[in-house]
Amino acid sequence: MALIVQKYGGSSVADAERIKSVARRIAATKDKGEQVVIVVSAMRGTTDELIELARQVSTQPGERELDVLLSTGEIVSSTLLAMALRDMSYKAISLTGAQAGIQTDSTYSRARILRVESKRVVKELNKGNIVIVAGFQGITDEMDITTLGRGGSDTTAVALAAGLVAEVCQIYTDVEGIYTADPHLVPEARHLTEIGYEEMLELASYGAKVIHPRAVELGELFNIPIVVASSFTDSPGTLIHGGVSMEVRNKARSVAHDLDVAKITVVGIPDRPGIAAAIFEPLAKAGINIDTIVQNASIENITDLTFTVAKSQLNRAMAVVKPIAESIGAKQCVSDSQLGKVSVIGTGIQNTPGYAARMFGVLSEQGINIQLITTSEIRITCIIDEAMVTDAVRALHRAFELEIED
Amino acid sequence: MALIVQKYGGSSVADAERIKSVARRIAATKDKGEQVVIVVSAMRGTTDELIELARQVSTQPGERELDVLLSTGEIVSSTLLAMALRDMSYKAISLTGAQAGIQTDSTYSRARILRVESKRVVKELNKGNIVIVAGFQGITDEMDITTLGRGGSDTTAVALAAGLVAEVCQIYTDVEGIYTADPHLVPEARHLTEIGYEEMLELASYGAKVIHPRAVELGELFNIPIVVASSFTDSPGTLIHGGVSMEVRNKARSVAHDLDVAKITVVGIPDRPGIAAAIFEPLAKAGINIDTIVQNASIENITDLTFTVAKSQLNRAMAVVKPIAESIGAKQCVSDSQLGKVSVIGTGIQNTPGYAARMFGVLSEQGINIQLITTSEIRITCIIDEAMVTDAVRALHRAFELEIED
Repeated sequence: MALIVQKYGGSSVADAERIKSVARRIAATKDKGEQVVIVVSAMRGTTDELIELARQVSTQPGERELDVLLSTGEIVSSTLLAMALRDMSYKAISLTGAQAGIQTDSTYSRARILRVESKRVVKELNKGNIVIVAGFQGITDEMDITTLGRGGSDTTAVALAAGLVAEVCQIYTDVEGIYTADPHLVPEARHLTEIGYEEMLELASYGAKVIHPRAVELGELFNIPIVVASSFTDSPGTLIHGGVSMEVRNKARSVAHDLDVAKITVVGIPDRPGIAAAIFEPLAKAGINIDTIVQNASIENITDLTFTVAKSQLNRAMAVVKPIAESIGAKQCVSDSQLGKVSVIGTGIQNTPGYAARMFGVLSEQGINIQLITTSEIRITCIIDEAMVTDAVRALHRAFELEIED
Repeated sequence: MALIVQKYGGSSVADAERIKSVARRIAATKDKGEQVVIVVSAMRGTTDELIELARQVSTQPGERELDVLLSTGEIVSSTLLAMALRDMSYKAISLTGAQAGIQTDSTYSRARILRVESKRVVKELNKGNIVIVAGFQGITDEMDITTLGRGGSDTTAVALAAGLVAEVCQIYTDVEGIYTADPHLVPEARHLTEIGYEEMLELASYGAKVIHPRAVELGELFNIPIVVASSFTDSPGTLIHGGVSMEVRNKARSVAHDLDVAKITVVGIPDRPGIAAAIFEPLAKAGINIDTIVQNASIENITDLTFTVAKSQLNRAMAVVKPIAESIGAKQCVSDSQLGKVSVIGTGIQNTPGYAARMFGVLSEQGINIQLITTSEIRITCIIDEAMVTDAVRALHRAFELEIED
């Protein structure tokens, strides 16, 4: 009897009908004789409603309180799913993150899982129960409720799969897995039946929102095979694992994009030690996530520093950075919120020279100006004008022949 | 420095504006230098919405799951209230029932509090926090979430007041305390500045919905003074306590009424031992609350048994009772859902003969037919036609001169 962990996202449990439909899928898995642990997100829209309530009573809701508030969203969906399964005469029980033993540190709003104390889950499985765990949440050693931040439910699922030594962790969402590019932008985008952890990690980090990079990282660490598939169809999805065939590794695999990019440039900074810390420590303290950072080579001891943030965080970031820029004697501080990001990803990139040149050439042919460039071993990313992102993705997908089967 | 427990009901935290207004009231208490523990109900409407969600996914939601689901309502309001207080620069922290140490048995949906483990609450008070506890919920020794059933948040508040040895437990609601009758029905109804536990218990049990009888009982047991007052005004409310002046005890104090009454009569039952048990045990198992039970004197070993239930439970109760009635050889089983209940309550009743006769006389003068009568030492209750309840309450209030100050 294998143990399977399945995670269902907010759109998969958006209303009573969807919950009942998900219950039928779970029942089908249980009928195969598997032990089943389910992780659920909040019903779509719930989290936003709760945040709006918080905003109405408080200009700056404390993170501890906000975490307790938000954790109720997943508790609601987990109980409803358990009820739906019981209504179909299956044994099922819901557990909160605390009850399921998701022990975290006390970094409210973005807690890290310290360990999974799976005793209660195992006990309920042994009673024959389908165990439904509220995702996105945990509890500290002081019994305070935390949330895991972005991608929290994916992370809960993979952590439980690791803790319970599950055969596979299945992430159910509203798309049929991983594609060579966003099918909405590129009609000829090809579905991938498998992908390696590392490529998936870059893909998830650089725009593919199907699964959160934290969960992929955790999967790689504990070598848990992850399947990403649609809860609306029966197609097999994409398997994320470590054992990807050698022969498919030596090429570009996919084009990722992200429209949520804003840029801040601090112009004319005296180039001396401690400047970067002076700027980024206060930003981190303000809870602003920095994405790409680029610093130009210094000319006459004056340099420019550019970094990107999510558009929604631009105003707060500028408010933090401006006074710092002044105090360190920078010339000015400018921002641009009309940006996007395109990335070409694939393990082939690290072994094959010329990928970067080809990418820049393609963008140039399209008349697209590149504002920033960053690379990793298996990824090349260009920050460009937001309006040009669709053209860029399509042209890159064609140029790298991603529509052709491996 | 005194410790005060305040409870705010669902209408007092119905929306963001009300929550902020309640936060200001709490702040005013804190400013007096008191230690403050707050218990909140769910925002008005939330519980019904959650029940409706459960109904949509399940024909018979399991009680354990339903309890976890419903407990989220009070968690939401407790966090919002804590945020509102923090926004006013007060130190405040929300605690779930589990965190506040409300330990219960595992009778889901109507759990009884076993004990209050107040360590965490005391710790937070000592840090200078206003402690906001989610009402209506507790946790079992196995870490399962329970709800306390009707009147749950009132009970949480009084239990915490007892556990923390609070000076007073203040129950804030949308009315200004206890009246000699419902002011909506009887314009001359008089506000009571104080009332004894026992009278309040009868009053609460027989229709005054301002505070739940469980909470009154608990208050009496631990001798916790309870104040019932409005969260919308500054009027002092009604003090429920044990030390009511001797001279005000010797009369009728108030008229209570209840429109939620349905009646079932099992006609022509063979009068032998075990019949009552045969009928009421299955009803109890089905979770149906029986209110009044009346059995007529047996004539030729044949008797009739009548009892009342809430209107919403009539259909389920009939479904349980009908087959039993047949199996024990009863003639028939009839029901009436158009009933109401009026009660005259006061410690004076036990010492003064003639109260019952006067009540029946008043109803008779109004042309009101009495269907059932039950009495306690300090209460006389008549079940009558629903349509006559308003007339009955007004006439009784006049006849017992309740509008006249003690």
